[in-house]
Amino acid sequence: MADKVVLYYFNGRGKMESIRWLLTVAEVEFDEVHLRTREDYEKLLRDGDLMFQQVPLVEMDGMKLIQSKAILHYIAGKYDLFGKDLKERVMIEMYSEGLIDLMEMMMKLIFMGDTTAEKENILNKAKNRYLPVFEKVLIETVHLVGGKVSLADVLLTECTLMLEELFVGILGDFRNIKSFQGRMTSIPAITRFLLPGSKRRPPPDEVYKNTVMEVLQFKLP
Amino acid sequence: MADKVVLYYFNGRGKMESIRWLLTVAEVEFDEVHLRTREDYEKLLRDGDLMFQQVPLVEMDGMKLIQSKAILHYIAGKYDLFGKDLKERVMIEMYSEGLIDLMEMMMKLIFMGDTTAEKENILNKAKNRYLPVFEKVLIETVHLVGGKVSLADVLLTECTLMLEELFVGILGDFRNIKSFQGRMTSIPAITRFLLPGSKRRPPPDEVYKNTVMEVLQFKLP
Repeated sequence: MADKVVLYYFNGRGKMESIRWLLTVAEVEFDEVHLRTREDYEKLLRDGDLMFQQVPLVEMDGMKLIQSKAILHYIAGKYDLFGKDLKERVMIEMYSEGLIDLMEMMMKLIFMGDTTAEKENILNKAKNRYLPVFEKVLIETVHLVGGKVSLADVLLTECTLMLEELFVGILGDFRNIKSFQGRMTSIPAITRFLLPGSKRRPPPDEVYKNTVMEVLQFKLP
Repeated sequence: MADKVVLYYFNGRGKMESIRWLLTVAEVEFDEVHLRTREDYEKLLRDGDLMFQQVPLVEMDGMKLIQSKAILHYIAGKYDLFGKDLKERVMIEMYSEGLIDLMEMMMKLIFMGDTTAEKENILNKAKNRYLPVFEKVLIETVHLVGGKVSLADVLLTECTLMLEELFVGILGDFRNIKSFQGRMTSIPAITRFLLPGSKRRPPPDEVYKNTVMEVLQFKLP
């Protein structure tokens, strides 16, 4: 069916995982085409589907969308997850950009050799730069912006689960965030997404790493 | 006056320069407070003005805006430079994200030692990944999206001027982009911005580099 949303990416989290999360919360069905070989990627290039030769690619509403933030904003705009006016939207984007910065640091770990120093850096930034902001906002509110679920809430939920995978108990000092996470994961669509067999991807492993490196033909420094 | 827009950043381009460009095209007056010492930055931190401890910071409409993309989108939304609907906006964001990726590569050069290999990489990506996309779009249109000036046009103008500073004659093979650049720089607000004495900042130099490194206390690897 022409209107079905189709995601083109690796069979792993990377920059597509937040898009999977957001579509899930918006209750939009989607299919996935996984890039497994260099040839899969070169076919997309030849077909002219990748504007800047990069994935994620999302086919949606007759468009071939690229650039993960642009895609997230389109989905958030379409499904009323982006605030009621410009002032709410800019708050949602400010929170979202910070969360994406933090998640991108975590995404890169799988491509590093010794990750000890970088994990320490991420832990420090999470505890001192990022989490305190959200902990404070959530003293007085149930959602980050505008009294309802937005893109920022979805990304905070995803980000805190990623953090807990890496740093067990990290939310111990952030009780409001932990409560928020509990409320968010009780949303039926998210509860289902967190069950085995859903389209949520597991943490990156060697197979994911090797596939990405082969498909994009990059070597570790 | 409470409503005056104030930019807090280094006295240099960096991530603030696109914001200066966009405000210029929107014909919004702004003041600047330049961070010159570590103490200037620590004062902003103590005052709680930097949500994630980072600049750019823009005071505008009673808000303390951070995260450069969030700020650009707020300004673009407010001043009708962001398309007429979601489909135009996502196109504008796709182009903008690509242009920002390319400009960020150029921004980092000043913090590198030997830049020969990275300049080669940027030139290659500019000629093969980015510029062909815009050259093709501009065969049939005067503006990138929606028949009028948008955030994407402003960023393309800024980006092409940056490219020409680094790679003289790079637009020789991209005639449509060169014509576009000529049209954009004929807009009176942009013409004034390109004259000496405007708020446009010069290419980064050693003073800028040393200030950033002192203020943010980072060392080169």
